[in-house]
Amino acid sequence: MDFVSRWEPNARERLQQAAMELYSERGFDQTTVADIAARAGLTERTFFRYFPDKREVLFWGSGKLEELLVDGVTRAPDSTGPMDAVTAALEAVAPIFEERRDLVRQRHTLIVGHTELQERELIKLASLGSAITKALHRRGVPEPVARLTAETGVAVLRVAFEGWVQNPKPSAFVQHVREARESLRAIAAGRKPTRD
Amino acid sequence: MDFVSRWEPNARERLQQAAMELYSERGFDQTTVADIAARAGLTERTFFRYFPDKREVLFWGSGKLEELLVDGVTRAPDSTGPMDAVTAALEAVAPIFEERRDLVRQRHTLIVGHTELQERELIKLASLGSAITKALHRRGVPEPVARLTAETGVAVLRVAFEGWVQNPKPSAFVQHVREARESLRAIAAGRKPTRD
Repeated sequence: MDFVSRWEPNARERLQQAAMELYSERGFDQTTVADIAARAGLTERTFFRYFPDKREVLFWGSGKLEELLVDGVTRAPDSTGPMDAVTAALEAVAPIFEERRDLVRQRHTLIVGHTELQERELIKLASLGSAITKALHRRGVPEPVARLTAETGVAVLRVAFEGWVQNPKPSAFVQHVREARESLRAIAAGRKPTRD
Repeated sequence: MDFVSRWEPNARERLQQAAMELYSERGFDQTTVADIAARAGLTERTFFRYFPDKREVLFWGSGKLEELLVDGVTRAPDSTGPMDAVTAALEAVAPIFEERRDLVRQRHTLIVGHTELQERELIKLASLGSAITKALHRRGVPEPVARLTAETGVAVLRVAFEGWVQNPKPSAFVQHVREARESLRAIAAGRKPTRD
């Protein structure tokens, strides 16, 4: 019985939902793990089974994102150059953002308004860069081209993501990736951007 | 008299030197501000007149680097495209690294071996990216091209710096910047790197 009563359906999702609500209502700093657990109808102990701290609730998706990006780079055809292998991987992660647009936008607003969370985001992006570099190595891309491609790919991801998340209307993430990729091609060729 | 006795010649440089020695000898975590001040023959109070904490001793140059980069982007001829304005700026900061090569290499070894310091480095690089973005805006480069160019420029800087700092022999920083710039041109055009 004890075992059964401790099984909580969708505990992770309930905790995430509760955390996002409280961070938006009160602010990140004013919310405790106890508050989050109470809002989710769970115990603090359950919270710590899923997350090491209240900051990580906001970064639960970064492991999955990294896994999908690495997978995307790995699966690109042998004939594909490194930058286009990374671009294909960026396109493949579109569902991660599109399937939970409201949550992603709410999270983004929180992060840009909080230095400590922005710092954690930078660390996650650096981790993505390293994972992509390793995936490119496995495709036979030598250093320092692998590192430069991966870091540039992260820049493309950031710009595409910013465009998508700031768009008040739902839009295709893939379209933002393609625009950033084409913009990269133009600026790297030394072209001046045209004014609209 | 009191005023005169408190004036310490080259206090900042002596504190930096002492900190680098102690971090290398004992490790960053095992060194206190009191240790650094004692090694430099100064007081803790003097330390805190120059640095907010023992971590910032390692990042004293980042303000100057940012200033020079922004200046370099600003001074590039009007006809220069945004990526080449950033490249010119990266070339202009070569003396910052070349004039103190041993110190820069020692510092680099420390940072790559310490997570907390790597995180601080990421924050400083993000700040460089934002400063370069703003300098490009002032040249009339619209978003999101300005942000993409700046972030890509930071990737070029990182790769050029890695190549320079890991080179066991002194080499021209400008040469590493140019190689990374040409590599960026090739990968952004979709080319596969050639194997040596």
